[in-house]
Amino acid sequence: MEKVNLAQKFALFNEHWSPRIVGEVQDMHVKLVKLKGEFVWHLHEHEDEMFFVVRGPLLIKFRDRDVWLDEGEFLIIPRGIEHLPVAEEEVQVMLFEPKGTLNTGNVQGERTVADLERI
Amino acid sequence: MEKVNLAQKFALFNEHWSPRIVGEVQDMHVKLVKLKGEFVWHLHEHEDEMFFVVRGPLLIKFRDRDVWLDEGEFLIIPRGIEHLPVAEEEVQVMLFEPKGTLNTGNVQGERTVADLERI
Repeated sequence: MEKVNLAQKFALFNEHWSPRIVGEVQDMHVKLVKLKGEFVWHLHEHEDEMFFVVRGPLLIKFRDRDVWLDEGEFLIIPRGIEHLPVAEEEVQVMLFEPKGTLNTGNVQGERTVADLERI
Repeated sequence: MEKVNLAQKFALFNEHWSPRIVGEVQDMHVKLVKLKGEFVWHLHEHEDEMFFVVRGPLLIKFRDRDVWLDEGEFLIIPRGIEHLPVAEEEVQVMLFEPKGTLNTGNVQGERTVADLERI
């Protein structure tokens, strides 16, 4: 049982779109991820996903609207909803989602990271 | 699906030790709580609990040691571990824990809040 300092953990990696596991709570993982650029449209069939923005602004596009998130804001995306994260500058996010959730959800391809590092 | 701004939500209540529900992710609740003073020693038999500190410093006492948390830091307390949160000045915390988790865990009494408000 060690406390986690977000700034210290974010300093440990630079890759974009490659979440790191920093904790587990019940059946959920807490992950940190750096985002830059545009991801891929995807959905998670069985998993809700929480994006808590540590450094923004982050744009999350949905098929019917856009949501902008800045530091100290979060959005919970229910399972089944297609979304596309977009970050013009580098964004830092804390994710909270069920263990085993794939970053690209139903769209497996070159952006998929299956084996997540713990830091 | 609405984004949540932590500062706006914290401005909606002043009570201490009375968590508000601000979201749900899978079987978990996201809660905000303001703490001031000393709580009661307790544990959660079946629930892990994550304390993410938005405004600190927060002291969490364990039977064998103390952990200090400041803004941008979190601690996950596994089920079964006795703990006592202490806040000299007002502290703001975001909690992640299973739905139905009682604030006082195994020690039900006058500090127990069974019916949580959603804000």
